This record gives sequence, structure tokens and C-alpha cells, in this order.
Amino acid sequence: MNVQQSIPPLPVIAVVGATGAVGIEIINCLESRDVPVGELRLLASARSAGQHLPFRGSDVLVQELTERSFDGCNIVFFSAGASVSRKYAPLAVAAGAVVVDNSSAFRMDPNVPLIVPEANGGTIAPHAGIIANPNCVAAIATTALAPLQRCWAITRLNMVTYQSASGAGAAAMDELRQATAAAVNEEPFEQQIMPHPMAFNLFSHNAEIDPETGYNGEETKVIAETRRILGLPRLPVGITCVRVPVLRAHSIALSVRFDGFVSPESVRDKLSNAPGVRVVDDIENNHFPMPCEASGIEDVLVGRIRTDLIDPTGQTIAMFISGDQLLKGAALNAVQIAENLLAQQVTSQAA
Amino acid sequence: MNVQQSIPPLPVIAVVGATGAVGIEIINCLESRDVPVGELRLLASARSAGQHLPFRGSDVLVQELTERSFDGCNIVFFSAGASVSRKYAPLAVAAGAVVVDNSSAFRMDPNVPLIVPEANGGTIAPHAGIIANPNCVAAIATTALAPLQRCWAITRLNMVTYQSASGAGAAAMDELRQATAAAVNEEPFEQQIMPHPMAFNLFSHNAEIDPETGYNGEETKVIAETRRILGLPRLPVGITCVRVPVLRAHSIALSVRFDGFVSPESVRDKLSNAPGVRVVDDIENNHFPMPCEASGIEDVLVGRIRTDLIDPTGQTIAMFISGDQLLKGAALNAVQIAENLLAQQVTSQAA
Repeated sequence: MNVQQSIPPLPVIAVVGATGAVGIEIINCLESRDVPVGELRLLASARSAGQHLPFRGSDVLVQELTERSFDGCNIVFFSAGASVSRKYAPLAVAAGAVVVDNSSAFRMDPNVPLIVPEANGGTIAPHAGIIANPNCVAAIATTALAPLQRCWAITRLNMVTYQSASGAGAAAMDELRQATAAAVNEEPFEQQIMPHPMAFNLFSHNAEIDPETGYNGEETKVIAETRRILGLPRLPVGITCVRVPVLRAHSIALSVRFDGFVSPESVRDKLSNAPGVRVVDDIENNHFPMPCEASGIEDVLVGRIRTDLIDPTGQTIAMFISGDQLLKGAALNAVQIAENLLAQQVTSQAA
Repeated sequence: MNVQQSIPPLPVIAVVGATGAVGIEIINCLESRDVPVGELRLLASARSAGQHLPFRGSDVLVQELTERSFDGCNIVFFSAGASVSRKYAPLAVAAGAVVVDNSSAFRMDPNVPLIVPEANGGTIAPHAGIIANPNCVAAIATTALAPLQRCWAITRLNMVTYQSASGAGAAAMDELRQATAAAVNEEPFEQQIMPHPMAFNLFSHNAEIDPETGYNGEETKVIAETRRILGLPRLPVGITCVRVPVLRAHSIALSVRFDGFVSPESVRDKLSNAPGVRVVDDIENNHFPMPCEASGIEDVLVGRIRTDLIDPTGQTIAMFISGDQLLKGAALNAVQIAENLLAQQVTSQAA
């Protein structure tokens, strides 16, 4: 199928995985951003069905996800893992909905646009009913990189991450809190969710590693998705993904090489006017992006903008960024994609 | 003065800053490594004097540091900050002692060797009475880099750090514990030591920033000291220093370019046989260097050894390392320097 589904002005919107960390933030974003919603349908596994979640002053019942859940839906957010998306997203499309998929299931499918609105929102159409929401690191990084790429060609990229527990879901956030409470009370604690202790510790990202390359699945995803979002399929990307004891914001040390000299001042200037970006680069007060200030806000914080001394030609800029993993790294970006779909609908109906 | 002080087989050893986080670890290392000690003299500010610290079954009185403290001393460890070292280290040398200085006061003085025994222990003589102990990041990184540099020329280096609270002293470690306890109990907390919240947060290293370059004092030190220890004064070094909520081990994402192709297997092989290094690179079990396993041990843990994809020529290797900031990053390295001095004494007396 290769059609643009028609979306009414007050759409029926469903959220699959509504009770998860990202699902709850999708509901919050729909509310806080005043997205027009005719009906909100909350879907989850049988285990989570029966709960109620607040939305615009009402309590909405969470229903069990079934093959018939999508009747009458216009937009369906999926945030319940790749296998649920693979099984149910085609059913949602067949029922006439547009899917915004937060899983990795379709991100590298050439028929599925992979969208960060600030970076490549213009490529959302044509689509075949599914729009993919990127990996959190790729979404946060490209929000800061795209405004630069519009001015100067990026020729090399290095990313070293400080990734929060939220990337592994609400259970991992709980485990970080519990493990840390046990540590400060000098009590024993046995982790169940993460493979390694989280309290006052950090570790290489727990995604499976390709023994051929030595890169883990998270790193491989970030490389492929960053290249795809930036439209630079051959960009050399170095990456190290690390989990740190932080609750819900990812930070990334970025090093970006351009095809000519670029000054830190010009980068700071471009980013100061970029959507979705807030420059926090106060050298005098040693105040730069921090997870505690990035958490709960929509903008990606960018600072430590300086010439990277690794490159004596002055063509490389180093930066440090922090972004809310659940917002720009997941729910907010998904809701922004839906807003783009709604806006295009308005445009095409006006035309 | 440019003499080699004579050190007797059972030297009088003093520790300036004995009650600090590093001072206590120096005393522990002297004990655990069976360093011959005729007399241990513990020195501190008036505020800390009067305490007793355990050493080999006795309690040693901490005395107030004065200009007369060094009479009869053979080796004096300084770990009380650069201004104390600048004032008192020359007095200790004048009294006939060799100083092992843990501060930054003399590290770039061309008359003062800057020593990581595994990397450049052979350059400890000649000296003029003071040997400098490097910055913790430089010491930990060069322990892992030196064995590689002996095989292949290093042409470029990038370091992104995950630095523990211990680098800012025992008070910062306490603040991390207290701030985190408050956070898990949802109580307010006002930080006194660090400029930013430490609980479940991270921030760019708090050293002062040069507004010209955008690099902070920690980064500048690590670049200069790493170049000096490796004997590569013009090496391009990129660096980002970040404090993370970890108690006492630093981690570093390293990217090292060589002047030709180097395979991850050959790097792993060289590091497996290198002193002071333990390879922890278990792809199958996703087990790599972690602060919780590096804390309290002498070896620097090295893993995630792989070809860095940022460099399509295959000449760059990425690694992830963790080392105890108080041990290899400070006290252990200082005690190893003293051991080298004692061993040379034995050698020169035998000659």
C-alpha cells in the first residue's frame, strides 16, 4: 500500500504500550502540546489492561491490545518493542491508520521514513502508512547536528554517550532507584533488569555485541539511523555507548568534522536559532548541559562548543549535549511526527 | 640542586595530607605492598593534626605540617594541593628528602620527571629531588597506552572521560553519597563542595575554563601530561572531561590512531601481557571495564577493544578503560615511584 491515509481534524489516536515509560510520556505530550484528539485509545498487554490513565481531566481505561484494536483509528503510536510492532503495525495500517512506530522494527526499511522533524521533517511523505521514530541517541544527536549540516558538510562524526536508565524502560529506572537506595543504606541488592550493578556504576551498553566488529546493537543502530536521518549514508561514525546512573536524560560528547574550517562562534550562532535546541554554554559559570536540567524539557541542551584539538586543521568542533531520553529521545519526537502528519493533512485539504 | 639523594634501606617516609582521600590510600599502599619503612611520619594541617591513623598494627599520630617537619626524612609524599607543594616541597628537598608530589605544582617543570612507572619509569633519573605524580586521567590512560606505543607510533588520541567524585577529594565523595541518599528519600539537598547536583546527574568537569580555547583546566592538564609521559610533545589530543556519579574509579573512552593498520587482536595481545593492565573484554557475556570492578584494585581494566569506525583506514583503535582514581590515578602510582627510587638506590649501591 502506498497511499496517504486521510486523517480527520479530530483524529482517533491510539497508544500501544500506554503504560510504559514512553507510552505515558506520549499521553503527556498529546495533552501538553494541545494535539487535537477526538478519542484516545490506550492499549497494552493483558497484564497492564484494566488500569486507568489520566488525560485532559478524564481517566482513560487501558484496554488489552488485540488484532481488532485499531478499528476506526487514524493515528497509532507503537511503543511496546519491535516484535509487537512487527505483528500489529501492519494491522493498524490495514485498518486505515497511520502508525508512528517507536521501535526499531521498521527504521531501516526504505519504504518507512525515519523522522526527526527538526532534521528531516520534509521527508515524511510519501509513506506507506508507517513512520519510524528513531533511536533516542540518534534523535537527540541529529536535532543538534541538522542545523549545522544545513550550513556546512559533515565529513566525520564521533559520539561517546552517557545513557540514562530510562532507555531500558520504567523497570530499569526503578532498579536504578532501588539499587542506589540499597547502596546508600549499605544493604545488599540483586539486579534483575540490568546485567550489571547500576548504583554508583556505569557500563558499556548492554545490547548484544557483533563478535565480528566488536560493536553492540545500540551502537550499530545509532550509526545507521544517524546516517539515514542526515542523508549521509557513507558518513564515518565512531561511537561508544555507555549506560550511566542517571534517570532519564542522555548526554553525548560529540565531535563533528566539517569539510572546511568552522569557528565555535558560528556553530553557537547557528544553534542559538535552531528549533528544538537550547544553547547552554556559560564558560564563566561553568554551566553546560546536564541531565538534571535536560530532564522534563523538550529542547536538547548544547554546550562546550569548541574547536576539537584532535584536528589541527580547525575543521572539527567538539560539543556536549543532553536531551530527555523519554521526550526528544522518544515520546516528544513521536508526537511531533503526528503533528507533522496533521499539519500536512490540513495543507493538502486546503490545496 | 641536581643530586641523587641517598635513601637508606629502611627510609623515613612522610606523607603530607595524610588524612585526605589520597593520603590514606598512600598509607594503605605502603602497607599492602610491603614497602620498607623505618619511620612513617604523618603530616596534615592544624585542623587534622592530633588524629591517629593505623599503619602495620600501630596507630600513628598525625602531626601538624611545619617548616621543620622534614628533618631526617628520606622520602616525602605530598598530597595536599599545589600551593602546599609549592611552599613545602623545596623545604623537604633542602632537608635531604626526595619528594613524590601528587599535585600539579611541578608536573610541567622540565627539571621534574613526570612518572608513570609502567610507561616511563626509566626516565625517573636524573632528578633534582622532586618527582611528579601525574593527573589521574593521564596516569590511568598512559598505563594502557604505553604498551601500545612501544609497538606502534601513536599519531592521534581522543579521550572522553567518566570521572568519579574521588578526584575532588573525600568531601566530594561524601557529598555524592549524601546527595544521593537525599534524592532516593525525596529530601532536599544543597551541595557545598561541587558546583552542580551530583545525585543521578553528571556535568562537565568543574575546573576553570580558558575562554580563549574553551577547554577546562583538567582537560589542559591531561593533554600536556599525557604528551609528556608518552614523550610525544606534539601529539594531537582531543578531550572532554565529565564528572559522573561514581565514587572512586575513572573510566575513559579512548580512540587511538597509529601510523599504520593495527588489528584489535594484536592490541588485545599486547595489553594482555602489559604490567598494570588487565584485559576485560568478554563480548559473549557483555562484560567490560566497570568502575565497580576497577575500584580497590591496582590494575587498569581495558576492554571494548575494536577498530574505530571513525577511521576507514583501520589505523584507529577504540577502547574503554576503568581505573581506580585513588590508586593508579594517585596513591598507588606515587608509591610505585617511591619503590622505583628505592630499587635504583639498591642498584646504585650494588654498582
